[in-house]
Amino acid sequence: MNRSLVKKSTLPLAGALVGIPSAALAGEAVAEVAGAAVLYVANNTWMLVATFLVFIMHLGFASLEAGLTRSKNTVNILFKNTAIVAIGLLTYAVMGFNLMYPGEFSIAGFFGFSGFGIGVSPENMMVAGDDGVGIYTYWTDFIFQAMFAATAATIVSGAVAERVKLHSFLIFSVIYVALVYPWVGSWKWGGGWLDTMGFYDFAGSTLVHSVGGWAALAGVLLLGPRLGKYVGNSIKPIMGHNMPLATIGVFLLWLGWFGFNGGSVLSADPVAVSFVFVTTCLAAAAGVVGASALSWLVQKKPDLSMALNGCLAGLVGITAGADVVGVMDSILIGFLAGLLVVAAVLLLDRLRIDDPVGAISVHLVCGVWGTLAVGIFSAEHSLLTQLIGVVAYGVTCFVAAFVLFFLLKVTIGIRVDEEEEMRGLDVGEHGMEAYAGFEINNV
Amino acid sequence: MNRSLVKKSTLPLAGALVGIPSAALAGEAVAEVAGAAVLYVANNTWMLVATFLVFIMHLGFASLEAGLTRSKNTVNILFKNTAIVAIGLLTYAVMGFNLMYPGEFSIAGFFGFSGFGIGVSPENMMVAGDDGVGIYTYWTDFIFQAMFAATAATIVSGAVAERVKLHSFLIFSVIYVALVYPWVGSWKWGGGWLDTMGFYDFAGSTLVHSVGGWAALAGVLLLGPRLGKYVGNSIKPIMGHNMPLATIGVFLLWLGWFGFNGGSVLSADPVAVSFVFVTTCLAAAAGVVGASALSWLVQKKPDLSMALNGCLAGLVGITAGADVVGVMDSILIGFLAGLLVVAAVLLLDRLRIDDPVGAISVHLVCGVWGTLAVGIFSAEHSLLTQLIGVVAYGVTCFVAAFVLFFLLKVTIGIRVDEEEEMRGLDVGEHGMEAYAGFEINNV
Amino acid sequence: MNRSLVKKSTLPLAGALVGIPSAALAGEAVAEVAGAAVLYVANNTWMLVATFLVFIMHLGFASLEAGLTRSKNTVNILFKNTAIVAIGLLTYAVMGFNLMYPGEFSIAGFFGFSGFGIGVSPENMMVAGDDGVGIYTYWTDFIFQAMFAATAATIVSGAVAERVKLHSFLIFSVIYVALVYPWVGSWKWGGGWLDTMGFYDFAGSTLVHSVGGWAALAGVLLLGPRLGKYVGNSIKPIMGHNMPLATIGVFLLWLGWFGFNGGSVLSADPVAVSFVFVTTCLAAAAGVVGASALSWLVQKKPDLSMALNGCLAGLVGITAGADVVGVMDSILIGFLAGLLVVAAVLLLDRLRIDDPVGAISVHLVCGVWGTLAVGIFSAEHSLLTQLIGVVAYGVTCFVAAFVLFFLLKVTIGIRVDEEEEMRGLDVGEHGMEAYAGFEINNV
Repeated sequence: MNRSLVKKSTLPLAGALVGIPSAALAGEAVAEVAGAAVLYVANNTWMLVATFLVFIMHLGFASLEAGLTRSKNTVNILFKNTAIVAIGLLTYAVMGFNLMYPGEFSIAGFFGFSGFGIGVSPENMMVAGDDGVGIYTYWTDFIFQAMFAATAATIVSGAVAERVKLHSFLIFSVIYVALVYPWVGSWKWGGGWLDTMGFYDFAGSTLVHSVGGWAALAGVLLLGPRLGKYVGNSIKPIMGHNMPLATIGVFLLWLGWFGFNGGSVLSADPVAVSFVFVTTCLAAAAGVVGASALSWLVQKKPDLSMALNGCLAGLVGITAGADVVGVMDSILIGFLAGLLVVAAVLLLDRLRIDDPVGAISVHLVCGVWGTLAVGIFSAEHSLLTQLIGVVAYGVTCFVAAFVLFFLLKVTIGIRVDEEEEMRGLDVGEHGMEAYAGFEINNV
Repeated sequence: MNRSLVKKSTLPLAGALVGIPSAALAGEAVAEVAGAAVLYVANNTWMLVATFLVFIMHLGFASLEAGLTRSKNTVNILFKNTAIVAIGLLTYAVMGFNLMYPGEFSIAGFFGFSGFGIGVSPENMMVAGDDGVGIYTYWTDFIFQAMFAATAATIVSGAVAERVKLHSFLIFSVIYVALVYPWVGSWKWGGGWLDTMGFYDFAGSTLVHSVGGWAALAGVLLLGPRLGKYVGNSIKPIMGHNMPLATIGVFLLWLGWFGFNGGSVLSADPVAVSFVFVTTCLAAAAGVVGASALSWLVQKKPDLSMALNGCLAGLVGITAGADVVGVMDSILIGFLAGLLVVAAVLLLDRLRIDDPVGAISVHLVCGVWGTLAVGIFSAEHSLLTQLIGVVAYGVTCFVAAFVLFFLLKVTIGIRVDEEEEMRGLDVGEHGMEAYAGFEINNV
Repeated sequence: MNRSLVKKSTLPLAGALVGIPSAALAGEAVAEVAGAAVLYVANNTWMLVATFLVFIMHLGFASLEAGLTRSKNTVNILFKNTAIVAIGLLTYAVMGFNLMYPGEFSIAGFFGFSGFGIGVSPENMMVAGDDGVGIYTYWTDFIFQAMFAATAATIVSGAVAERVKLHSFLIFSVIYVALVYPWVGSWKWGGGWLDTMGFYDFAGSTLVHSVGGWAALAGVLLLGPRLGKYVGNSIKPIMGHNMPLATIGVFLLWLGWFGFNGGSVLSADPVAVSFVFVTTCLAAAAGVVGASALSWLVQKKPDLSMALNGCLAGLVGITAGADVVGVMDSILIGFLAGLLVVAAVLLLDRLRIDDPVGAISVHLVCGVWGTLAVGIFSAEHSLLTQLIGVVAYGVTCFVAAFVLFFLLKVTIGIRVDEEEEMRGLDVGEHGMEAYAGFEINNV
């Protein structure tokens, strides 16, 4: 969603908003103004729907992460994910939004910032196309983008779960959402240098998912694996404690993706939004099938957590090109993402990179795949340019996240102590159990 | 939702889509074109909202089915329901859609098929009324219908739970969604012989719910009851393991039904959609009251699972006539459905037909009731015609499903072995527990 | 949402509803009619979206209440909350709606009633502005309001949980939703005396939340604390049994609030609805931060249940003025609500007022705060008038609820006996467990 549109104040259409075309205008002019004004209402309504759909993805992330980990860390995960949404939204309001969409002030498309705080009196402002037709309001623009911003930090959360110090993670998230996410986001969606170059990322396979995924990788490398995960030459599976919760999480994420991708059309344009619904949905379905089939083949059992991650893999994979690839391509992209995520999960475990929920495999690996897929399946986009984008984001985000986590590690620490990790972070950090009264044998 | 509309390509309105009425047209023409173009945007947006609401019903079904069964089979149920959605959507894309809406090729309204795969280049296609006014896009048409298709298979899932072989069930589902559901669906919604006869089923009491319900009945009869359910002359209650999960399921189904019925208006027509919201919602409420009251009376205790099934009973019951019966009628239809579902659950248990979640009572019994209710409460529809439709669907679907399940039974088998059933399908088929760490006494 | 609009039948616009402007009209008239007709479609669609969002709040309340209490009372809570929605909707249809919006018959703006049952033939009726432009249908008007009505009773549910007799509570709810809620609601939203005075409550900090909160307080005072909660001088914490469920509840409530506040604009007016989305969302975020920070400071641990209640506190706090305060004000209002809720929870515990889920602190305390905040942060509203409203509602609702609960107490009783409370209401009232098979040590 390349929102390089100009905000205009006091457009002539603004007066026609509530369906009462000015009597001063006449004939054709009245018709066009009336039509455009109502279209503005319809577009804005769709974008608000997309906004609340993206919002519910945060519950999806929280449920998935809690479900795929142990019950002794559940309260910690729920607190973390609730706090991230809250902090992410506020941080984005204070500075992220104006860093990501710098408007006219920009240094070579590489850095720009239009100031602190969202606008104070933009009643008459709207995001409009070049023809002056209002698409949606300034407020919609902000809140839809803000919902995206919190997502990147949430992705990191799953990978570092069950051992990260809460306050260190929250500090990391604030800085990542305030600075890194909007800064690199501006390169493409803010009309920066990668946009100029022709790089394409429709809804964020790279700008959101791999930006989160690279940070997840950096965090996991600096944190190390959970205690007992890799002992000698053996890899010990640590099972999630609540598979219905994990499944709820994935279905809510799938639901939210209709807004994530569908809203990235940035209008209610019927053909575009509906097409994106179809490619998004079929890629998710194909991801489930691909991951289920491969894991059934390899592990001789149909694996629910692989099926769930396959769904997300398909969704992340289609996100970069949901509007520019064909329907059959979307199925292929999703299916391959499903295969990729299974391979990546198994490979990372071999490499002793311990990612409790598979966040790196889903968001980083399939984010890269989806971005490259645009260059492969869309004749209008160059694979080389897509690759340049992938590398630029990869290097920048990994380095930035690594430095941030490293500084936290050498100062306040990023990992809880061994005893707390064994007992669980719920009792250690929160003095609370997730399931009071239940008999649970924690490992 | 009788979508017997013609798909037209390159309509004159198509150029007016994005709110920029062609300058070539003038006066009244501009006004009408502008109005119709924006209406097309509004209709399409509503249909996409309805689509994601129907999507979330699949999470509802998964949660309800998992919640009302034992924890040792939970992973199996979650996998099954995730896979069904994925497979259902892909299957419907490959052939179901073109079998259900055959367009011009149809043999006596009884069979028709317009080819494999959804359209490859329908950018300018839309579903339009006779006046040429665009209602929504081809893509919306497909994705909304695809969400419905998967529902029928999901209904079966609950009835055969806790003992069916996973791969046999998946094979059944693919064939049922690919062939039976769209084929019989075409008789009414595809403009076939029952449509010609005047049979009415607004949103699928028969076409979706009883089509699923008949297959559920066939499956249960061939599978037999769960081990230990009927011993000697006694009926042993097998309690669901997670009532909050079941409740989440029912509320999500209720939520999704606003799209299931509301979207079946096939436009955003204010009076029609709003009226359907009211009848749908009040029927659900009356179903809760009816089922709660009767079970409280009979069992001397307010029974949560009856209240939940009463809600679904009311929803299934109102689905056939949500747009043609009165508001007070909708309350009565829902209330009677609530009574019916309690009676049916108790009766089926007497008949030793073991349906773990009450799917047959909800979807088949109340689906039939709702279809007949159209003939009773709507002066414009004939009870006899409704009955003919019910019988036609009943005979066809039951026979088709019975043959399918029978063929699977005598070849690869449809039921897991006794030991696996005792230990639970989660460990047996998936090598995984739903609640790792929790102390659970399974029965 | 001050719906003091007139219902008009057979408006000239009604014929233009489905996008086919009458050919009889010409020129400008056609343009205006076409624009207005489509706007009516867009407004109505948004209001239906808002309606299903408010609906899902009921699942939020059920999940939150069940999650924050003990597993031995879970079935009871789920039944109670399912029944309340059903009963609330039906009751509101039978008389609440016509009591709340009495239309022309009203005694001094203090009492009015336009009859039993919702309209039987309002096909051509719509809620229209003074200019005759249709905003949404009569049916939308009813169903959106009905969803609100059930909320007030649901708020009470949480406070009286774990010890109230089911049937007594249901009787209370029916009467409260049928009489008290719509009667006092008419003072403001029905165009009554407080509306005339200039009292402002956008979406119900007072009219919904404190109306529920005052009844909760009355109920708790008459019921007394749960057994074992206050022993000698010590306050025993009773932990919730399912924190993921509680978290799901809060996120669903946050989601639903986009419809609760966003729908209270009563149209899809882009600037107004989007602005309300932003203030609502940032207040919720600030509430999380405020409550988390204060509880972290006081209790030395980040407390998940405080963070969750902080979110709701922010939402309740912004509800009265979401459309009239500034963005920075909304953050401040939410943050202060977050502080307030922590203080109130701790204070009520000192006062031995036992509210298992913090409903009084969230809905009453923050409802009052939000209503007064309008007088503080909006220059156009008077703090004194706001205070008069708060007191009027407080006195009336508290007295009404107290009398109702008192009459029930001295007749059929409102509290289960000690043995049943110890064993749990699930077994006692429902003969059913929420988590069959799980080993649970109940307290």
